Amino acid sequence: MKTSIATVCLSGTLRDKLVAAARAGFDGVELFEPDLIAAPESPEEIRALADRLALTLDLYQPMRDVEGVDEAEFARVLRRAEAKFALMRRMGMDLVLCCSNAGTATVDDDEVSAAQLRVLGDLAAGYGIRIAYEALAWGRFVDDYRRAWRIVQRADHPAVGVCLDSFHVLSRGHDPAAIEAIPGEKIFFLQLADAPDLSMDVLSWSRHHRLFPGEGVFDLAGFTAHVLRAGYTGPLSLEVFNDTFRQTDPARTAAHARRSLRWLEDAVTARAGLPGLERLPALDPPRGFDFVEVTAEDTSPIERMLQQAGFTPRGRHRTKPVALWSAGRARIVLNEQHARDLAPHLSAFGLAVDDPARQSERVRALGVPAAYRRTYAHEELLPAVVAPDGTEVYWAVAGGEPAWVSEFEHGEPVREAPIEAVDHVSLTQPWQVVDESMLFYPAVFGLSSAGGTDVASPRGLVQSRVLRTPDGAVRVPLNVAPPIVAERGLPGGASQHVALRCHGVLALAHAARGRGLPVLPIPGNYYDDLAARFDLPAGFVERLRGLDIVYDRDEAGEYLNFYTETVGQVFFEFVERIDGYDGFGAGNAPVRMAAQGAAAGGVPS
Amino acid sequence: MKTSIATVCLSGTLRDKLVAAARAGFDGVELFEPDLIAAPESPEEIRALADRLALTLDLYQPMRDVEGVDEAEFARVLRRAEAKFALMRRMGMDLVLCCSNAGTATVDDDEVSAAQLRVLGDLAAGYGIRIAYEALAWGRFVDDYRRAWRIVQRADHPAVGVCLDSFHVLSRGHDPAAIEAIPGEKIFFLQLADAPDLSMDVLSWSRHHRLFPGEGVFDLAGFTAHVLRAGYTGPLSLEVFNDTFRQTDPARTAAHARRSLRWLEDAVTARAGLPGLERLPALDPPRGFDFVEVTAEDTSPIERMLQQAGFTPRGRHRTKPVALWSAGRARIVLNEQHARDLAPHLSAFGLAVDDPARQSERVRALGVPAAYRRTYAHEELLPAVVAPDGTEVYWAVAGGEPAWVSEFEHGEPVREAPIEAVDHVSLTQPWQVVDESMLFYPAVFGLSSAGGTDVASPRGLVQSRVLRTPDGAVRVPLNVAPPIVAERGLPGGASQHVALRCHGVLALAHAARGRGLPVLPIPGNYYDDLAARFDLPAGFVERLRGLDIVYDRDEAGEYLNFYTETVGQVFFEFVERIDGYDGFGAGNAPVRMAAQGAAAGGVPS
Repeated sequence: MKTSIATVCLSGTLRDKLVAAARAGFDGVELFEPDLIAAPESPEEIRALADRLALTLDLYQPMRDVEGVDEAEFARVLRRAEAKFALMRRMGMDLVLCCSNAGTATVDDDEVSAAQLRVLGDLAAGYGIRIAYEALAWGRFVDDYRRAWRIVQRADHPAVGVCLDSFHVLSRGHDPAAIEAIPGEKIFFLQLADAPDLSMDVLSWSRHHRLFPGEGVFDLAGFTAHVLRAGYTGPLSLEVFNDTFRQTDPARTAAHARRSLRWLEDAVTARAGLPGLERLPALDPPRGFDFVEVTAEDTSPIERMLQQAGFTPRGRHRTKPVALWSAGRARIVLNEQHARDLAPHLSAFGLAVDDPARQSERVRALGVPAAYRRTYAHEELLPAVVAPDGTEVYWAVAGGEPAWVSEFEHGEPVREAPIEAVDHVSLTQPWQVVDESMLFYPAVFGLSSAGGTDVASPRGLVQSRVLRTPDGAVRVPLNVAPPIVAERGLPGGASQHVALRCHGVLALAHAARGRGLPVLPIPGNYYDDLAARFDLPAGFVERLRGLDIVYDRDEAGEYLNFYTETVGQVFFEFVERIDGYDGFGAGNAPVRMAAQGAAAGGVPS
Repeated sequence: MKTSIATVCLSGTLRDKLVAAARAGFDGVELFEPDLIAAPESPEEIRALADRLALTLDLYQPMRDVEGVDEAEFARVLRRAEAKFALMRRMGMDLVLCCSNAGTATVDDDEVSAAQLRVLGDLAAGYGIRIAYEALAWGRFVDDYRRAWRIVQRADHPAVGVCLDSFHVLSRGHDPAAIEAIPGEKIFFLQLADAPDLSMDVLSWSRHHRLFPGEGVFDLAGFTAHVLRAGYTGPLSLEVFNDTFRQTDPARTAAHARRSLRWLEDAVTARAGLPGLERLPALDPPRGFDFVEVTAEDTSPIERMLQQAGFTPRGRHRTKPVALWSAGRARIVLNEQHARDLAPHLSAFGLAVDDPARQSERVRALGVPAAYRRTYAHEELLPAVVAPDGTEVYWAVAGGEPAWVSEFEHGEPVREAPIEAVDHVSLTQPWQVVDESMLFYPAVFGLSSAGGTDVASPRGLVQSRVLRTPDGAVRVPLNVAPPIVAERGLPGGASQHVALRCHGVLALAHAARGRGLPVLPIPGNYYDDLAARFDLPAGFVERLRGLDIVYDRDEAGEYLNFYTETVGQVFFEFVERIDGYDGFGAGNAPVRMAAQGAAAGGVPS
């Protein structure tokens, strides 16, 4: 289907926005009036620029407060409308958004609104323009698309139809099923926006927090399916007011926005089997982590910790300064290539998938930027993409040890270890990209959002969100550090880490400490509180205290884990999940972050 | 009165928080349990540290979900309570906060809650501890302080009283007058927090957006007066959950918090004439701006603009590399002292006040940091403070030309100019300090908050808030730039500026352009829209267009203004207020910011 994006979704000047939308592959734009007013280019220049970029100017938006008014006010509306219609003609535009009146309405009467739309329709038709009437969620009298449609029916004018906006319908909890009763040709335009689950006034929610489809909690696929079943054939257009996207690189936002529509088309077809929409190659969720990579100029401190934890050194890559360590199905790659001046950080991870070729097709179909790694003859060519935060994500076929392991030489025989696999990989996200990540991992790899929480660190609240497969084989918590940490590059707040799932974590902690593993010390007060909170045997609490192991419990089972100290930006966590415990011990995270702050020499003030 | 602050108001470790609270002059703290649990110090160490710092540990907070539960759950509550009471004894604490049950309550019965509080009271009394029961705004059954008080009455136990929290009462719109019916000795504790006017769920509002007294919209003075009239004699204690203060320097936040209580004591006494509270020296609002100072290594580009605008050069300061320019009552000081590598920026402004000595006393009473400037014999010693954003604010006696003007030598005779005075000074605020500023200017100088708005710039939303005197003689809009602008030091988004009020702005614009003043070009589309929005004579719109003058109108009158280009971080604005127009032309700000972005070579992406 044809795609469009409102210029208000993007930052920069109108020229920047048009260029970004075109480069991202949109077919058209909704032109947001303030963007035009602030632009130095004349309407004719904007039209010519759009022509050169092969962008259609799909909708001029919006005209506000046009109906439900008294006669004196309506005379002013007509005066303003005529000026705008003339302006639209200069740009060759033929569709204008008229929102239900939220400001000046004084008459709560469908007949009055319909009559005024009819007069506007006559005026518009003289300019070859059509009016798309939309119920704002906060319209003074008209705040429901069903009433807007009744008014349009009553207006009964060929130049007057409705505009449907997913936010205005779904934010109010209105049932979108009645959309199918609207004849497709009377749906003049479709605006799509997702949103997070927030309980605030609908106007603030709409103006600051909208998201691209797939990033929030709305059922955009279901909504869009209703509109398409009604026979709508216009563009799928994004109208996302979002404080973050207003700030960030418009080219990047536009590419991400375009990807959200690609994902949506697929989701709609999967739901409704509608013709004319393109599918994405279907995928099963990944089976587990293939590897995790830590990059640094010198990875020795990580090597030492892995050795102390019981990992086996599997040798050095035959053409690169890269080492492999493994324990059970957990593989850690240590990369010193192109790493000058870099402290240890998580640079990549791999996922084990059923069908790498289809995964690659899906990535291509979504237009995700590919990662590049130099390879030589007879080396496995691992495909990879760059995630929004810059982490590279690879994929290889699931089952047994992957073929690329054989490229490592001079390894030692594999030792038995109580470590089974990578349990989760926790990534720090810049605040600008976390919403994009919440679409990226589900759309590209089939992970699902599994809620989130705020964790209090000594330097502010860390926003944590979880992506995972349904079976828990892959879990990726994403953490957004407090702004001040990001702004000033302070330590603490949020670190990246690799959690390794094991059996017998108490024995492992004991043995690893014996081998010198630097374990993060947990304060004694924590154990006093643990004893007060849970009915645990006193001796057990004392064993945990002696080993700096933290504890959590949910309805299903228990969670035991300990942390290493942080090296560079990375630490390791060793976790044992007992009886199907399904969380991450979020309640322990504030204690862990305070301890990390103390270990880093205290929190600077 | 005794003052206290909850450790959750401050960032850092528990030790950092205690030190900060003590240095700011608080008498005690509320100890937030997670801060203790995450601390490496034992309870005995915390007690000893508090003793050394002369801080009392006033309240352990909180115990959650203690009443309204079934018997099995209540047994668990008692087990947990006993461990916490023992812990409190180790710290010599004798008061614990018990919130109304928001999680586990299953019994909606005052008698059950009262009976359970009575049992807890017996247990607590054995440890010499008292229980302060508080109605959370989101308590499952008990969410109103009046019901909490009925339950406490029914519990009828000497160790069980109420805790009152302004947020929980005022956020729900509950009338605080009934507080006066509670005997003072049964009000065991008082927690104070202000809040901005947000419409969101009360839990998120409370957990993320609380403010210190005077920074929000609650009537804290009225609330506190009710509590004091009831006979409460405990501490005024701050409990402010705020995402920003969780991140910022705890010493600074604590000083600011302490100042808010100083302001509150005064406001309560002003309201209620209660004994035992300290007044601040009373003040009238300032009469106008005394001067505005721009600092730079080289201020010549500013000098040139002032000359082009019609200012008179009043000479050079006799002991410093500082120049004075004036027009009407507007005085601009250009400062090149200690300015190496600095681009032009607003470094200070002066206010004309009725009684400089009382102003100085008030500043001292509030503990505001003083600014220092070197002065020599026979020079006016102008007192000044450092505002939260680093701007220095001076004051001198109102009426005629101030004495300090005579320190400038080699000036020219004052020329007639259509410029009358400084209309407003617009400051860019780092997001970390804007809330502090909203208390600073009202508490220190008697300005009032006059609402705010979000303005869309090409780089994101700029949050704008206005401080002013009732008569409009002093207006200070504060602008918070989008985070990405602050984080990356990008141009645009928000600039500082000085607005000069004049008569005949069209003639001034014409003359100043003739003298070469670099005026910010306003796009033609703006004027097309102006003609569509307002019923203005076509010739008038064309005159505005030719002079790059923007226009606004409110119920009272009209506003005409034009902007200079930006030099360093500063630009000037020339405004004419006709017939009592009272705003700032906020609707024109997006156009201005886009034009500034274009003038700065476009918005980088």
